[in-house]
Amino acid sequence: MIEPGNIFGARAMSPFTGVYPILATPFHDDERLDLDSLERAIRFMKSIGADGITVLGVLGESNRLTDREREQVVRAAVAAAEGMPVIVGASHPGTRATIELAGMAAESGASAVMVAPSLEPAPSDERVLEYYERIGKELSLPLVLQDHPASTQVHMPISLLIRIVENVPAVACIKEEGLPTPARIAALVAGMTRRRVPVLTGLGALYGLFDLEEGADGFNTGFAFPEVLLAMVRAKGENDWARVRSLYARFLPLIVFEQQPGVAIRKEILRRRGLLVSNRVRHPGAGLTPSAERQLQRLLDWILPGVDLTQPLVL
Amino acid sequence: MIEPGNIFGARAMSPFTGVYPILATPFHDDERLDLDSLERAIRFMKSIGADGITVLGVLGESNRLTDREREQVVRAAVAAAEGMPVIVGASHPGTRATIELAGMAAESGASAVMVAPSLEPAPSDERVLEYYERIGKELSLPLVLQDHPASTQVHMPISLLIRIVENVPAVACIKEEGLPTPARIAALVAGMTRRRVPVLTGLGALYGLFDLEEGADGFNTGFAFPEVLLAMVRAKGENDWARVRSLYARFLPLIVFEQQPGVAIRKEILRRRGLLVSNRVRHPGAGLTPSAERQLQRLLDWILPGVDLTQPLVL
Amino acid sequence: MIEPGNIFGARAMSPFTGVYPILATPFHDDERLDLDSLERAIRFMKSIGADGITVLGVLGESNRLTDREREQVVRAAVAAAEGMPVIVGASHPGTRATIELAGMAAESGASAVMVAPSLEPAPSDERVLEYYERIGKELSLPLVLQDHPASTQVHMPISLLIRIVENVPAVACIKEEGLPTPARIAALVAGMTRRRVPVLTGLGALYGLFDLEEGADGFNTGFAFPEVLLAMVRAKGENDWARVRSLYARFLPLIVFEQQPGVAIRKEILRRRGLLVSNRVRHPGAGLTPSAERQLQRLLDWILPGVDLTQPLVL
Amino acid sequence: MIEPGNIFGARAMSPFTGVYPILATPFHDDERLDLDSLERAIRFMKSIGADGITVLGVLGESNRLTDREREQVVRAAVAAAEGMPVIVGASHPGTRATIELAGMAAESGASAVMVAPSLEPAPSDERVLEYYERIGKELSLPLVLQDHPASTQVHMPISLLIRIVENVPAVACIKEEGLPTPARIAALVAGMTRRRVPVLTGLGALYGLFDLEEGADGFNTGFAFPEVLLAMVRAKGENDWARVRSLYARFLPLIVFEQQPGVAIRKEILRRRGLLVSNRVRHPGAGLTPSAERQLQRLLDWILPGVDLTQPLVL
Repeated sequence: MIEPGNIFGARAMSPFTGVYPILATPFHDDERLDLDSLERAIRFMKSIGADGITVLGVLGESNRLTDREREQVVRAAVAAAEGMPVIVGASHPGTRATIELAGMAAESGASAVMVAPSLEPAPSDERVLEYYERIGKELSLPLVLQDHPASTQVHMPISLLIRIVENVPAVACIKEEGLPTPARIAALVAGMTRRRVPVLTGLGALYGLFDLEEGADGFNTGFAFPEVLLAMVRAKGENDWARVRSLYARFLPLIVFEQQPGVAIRKEILRRRGLLVSNRVRHPGAGLTPSAERQLQRLLDWILPGVDLTQPLVL
Repeated sequence: MIEPGNIFGARAMSPFTGVYPILATPFHDDERLDLDSLERAIRFMKSIGADGITVLGVLGESNRLTDREREQVVRAAVAAAEGMPVIVGASHPGTRATIELAGMAAESGASAVMVAPSLEPAPSDERVLEYYERIGKELSLPLVLQDHPASTQVHMPISLLIRIVENVPAVACIKEEGLPTPARIAALVAGMTRRRVPVLTGLGALYGLFDLEEGADGFNTGFAFPEVLLAMVRAKGENDWARVRSLYARFLPLIVFEQQPGVAIRKEILRRRGLLVSNRVRHPGAGLTPSAERQLQRLLDWILPGVDLTQPLVL
Repeated sequence: MIEPGNIFGARAMSPFTGVYPILATPFHDDERLDLDSLERAIRFMKSIGADGITVLGVLGESNRLTDREREQVVRAAVAAAEGMPVIVGASHPGTRATIELAGMAAESGASAVMVAPSLEPAPSDERVLEYYERIGKELSLPLVLQDHPASTQVHMPISLLIRIVENVPAVACIKEEGLPTPARIAALVAGMTRRRVPVLTGLGALYGLFDLEEGADGFNTGFAFPEVLLAMVRAKGENDWARVRSLYARFLPLIVFEQQPGVAIRKEILRRRGLLVSNRVRHPGAGLTPSAERQLQRLLDWILPGVDLTQPLVL
Repeated sequence: MIEPGNIFGARAMSPFTGVYPILATPFHDDERLDLDSLERAIRFMKSIGADGITVLGVLGESNRLTDREREQVVRAAVAAAEGMPVIVGASHPGTRATIELAGMAAESGASAVMVAPSLEPAPSDERVLEYYERIGKELSLPLVLQDHPASTQVHMPISLLIRIVENVPAVACIKEEGLPTPARIAALVAGMTRRRVPVLTGLGALYGLFDLEEGADGFNTGFAFPEVLLAMVRAKGENDWARVRSLYARFLPLIVFEQQPGVAIRKEILRRRGLLVSNRVRHPGAGLTPSAERQLQRLLDWILPGVDLTQPLVL
């Protein structure tokens, strides 16, 4: 019997609300794992008050890692997190392999796993539900249901998401990244009448203001300045919408700039923040273009003039 | 022999530079064409100083119109434009049908046609080139080459775009909407050494600042406040980048909000601006959600408080 | 109120059972419509006892025709059919345009229209159902529901197809081309307990034997030797499965050869059968490769040695 | 320096010509690996004279295995093959992971690895070439270049395949499964003027006759009666095309039946042949439908009446 509440222990906030930055997986210039940088990034997230972290998501280039490397990342993350919840991406085309990856995460001390639907059961609602039921039955950790059609090519109607929440007790949170996120989050919040779990938004916070307005309980995404998201969630908690809007508007050019495909821009920002040693993306992922590098410099000079990026932003 | 320059006649600016708003196709509540609203919208675009307009693009729901309706739209647009250049979308899966649609546009008085590649010749660069050569040979109007992989599923490398420009004299402009647009625009501008045509950006101006920085000659897109884009292009012309940035930042929440899929949000804004009578989207396109309507109200109150939307924005 | 039975009048068989060859749209070498060849092909289909014909399907290159050409094809087909039922493809991304195309077909004397789902309502079962309800309400002709995910990218579960049959009285037939067709046809036949309509199979008869075994009521496809399909259906009617199998096995190499993408091979066979003057495919569709031409000759020499292809096959 | 010839040692035939059956990965009913069945299947392939085998292809459900299981499969396969060449599928979204999987295969005694292109470098020919160059440089085994757009969504023009062959010495064979295979194989054979490697066909042998006619050097596919393919290749070697055709025609209904999506039908045939203990497909792959089971029985009774399927077919 899973009781997600207990896992998050003495923390004041409800689990799966707030801000859970998704971490890039750092590499050296020769593409070897750089666990030192990973630990540094995690300590940084802890220092700014993140509610938890997520490793091995899309931004984490999990699909370019071997299983052994995945395990190394999880163990290093849990160690560095020192009690801060660690959500581990465990999506895999095979159900049994997903369960094995989740088991590895559990043994390594993770707090939850995040699973997006495999393409194969789609578009049968029955089979997607069965897929989550099967995984839920075998899990010893709470499950974050990731709805990210852009990467999965699985388009789940809201009614299906609600059925999964009702039928799979292990599901402890929905990460909603299907477009349009604001309307879908509103529909989820309104529809979960029998069982309500938190809804986090992602997509690099592109629609962050609108998602919070429609009921999102926080962020689970890789925007390279998570302090901004934390401040937005805090301001929402204080019902200070003017501040939510002003934070969103100020950083929106950066949020938009990061929307460009690939993870190179984010890794370069994290490097400039002193968290990564190298901005290396694993082949065949695209590296930083000279155009993007040039523009990023200008953009940071504009949005954060004179600011020491290696320090938490004062907002 | 096509001489694009002549078509744009006495206009001061080079053709295909500046701002060419893409128009929605207005419908009545029963989905019939509303040509009165179309004419009103065109007169508005003229009044704000648009360099031209585009009809029958993706935003124009051209794929939901019959051929006869397409012709009605073009004739009404040309009449209302009173000499302002009218670009007409003429993409069609069949080459011969594209040529016929372009011929119809020419007879109806259009200034240019916009053609995205048909899916079938892809991914053979040779065959995509041949496709444009064939169309170019039959055209009596200049051609805007639209690169919009999100709708065409055709991913053209920069080298192919340049080959088309070099080999198809009818191509008078590239509309670049392949991601990442800034780096691709920079590569196009650097690569067109033998023959240079203007490059316009689209995507609802999402990356507008970055595209202008990397060399875009203007916008060809459907953002519902084209005054902003005109002001950005003008400020760029005066090398006043602080103003370009400030305009972009101020309207970015609106630009982002409009990125949500479908055309309902834009049609609703155009309705609020007094241009359309109805925000109706043709079935099976999705209409405005209550969530989006609610959020749009709040957003406009925030970004443009107390402003009469039916008047051109004073920027 | 639609009564499909009446439309097919005095014909002995139930409507929408048997064999409805899908016709290629013939072109001259310069890609102009060749209505003479169309009429010749239709008279041939009548002479071999086809239960009806279909024009403007995928094989008919309907997506490369203008609306005016579509109408010319329908009028010519109805005239040549002299009372033989004519099914007209009327799929279009827009619902209203589909209804207009269907209206044109009705005015031109067609017997039924065939409509595949538009991509936009997918993957919401509710919206796909609504799409067919809307079309059904406006139609004056019976409707053949085409399930062909390979071209539509819409994957309808069996439960949805059955709901459409139950809720849209205009649906008079299902053309099932979703894989695996045999199992899906079996599930459809078993599941239509409230309302049963005929189920035809397509896919060039690739799984023809297996589809007939599982309950298909006939064929609606473009295999260039429809006499074979007529003989298979007749043999099934006489419960002579040994003959069904033997016919299938004998012609399977031809059926498989025709599975290669594009319509050039079929048009070439129809040309050799004396039905088309030219095997021309409209650009950008691929024409006949030298390799395919060479192999086709060998294949026909093997399967039908010494046979005059311009005459109906004696089977 | 790779010398593929040496790896295949004393074998009379050129390497990568002939028949290399692709093996299913056997599971117990509870989805655990069943290595006993794998070894039995390999001994069977050796007994019928297969030129080699392939493990961990699409049919091998490699994408549903953990890395550890992949290694177990390779080690068991090499042991059971007793010198018969073993090709190991090593495709992975990440280049470095592909190289690691290939290294594991080499250490485990494999003879070659098969790699399909990762989606990410497409559609840039330059980047796909670079992808293979990078892999080729790190490999100690010959490489089978798999061109299978249906699973990879990467559509490589023939000119690109030839460039890869010319620039990546490790490429020792092309497995061509892009449609239309016969014309593409003809173009490959004609185009490899600077460096010629064998071309094998796949796709379950659907176009087997036509592929052999156009120059295929054999089969690398999972048809459950590889004796038939061996006999076809042998007959081609003796220039006995009447026999090639007759074998193809006789088994084509089975070949077509196996084309239905998923691997359940093949696993059931292999079970009936005494090679697998269970036809279990790993979740979420689809299992055998009652319809398919019923039809398979009928089909085998028809094509192979009274034949003991557990023995090699006498052809």
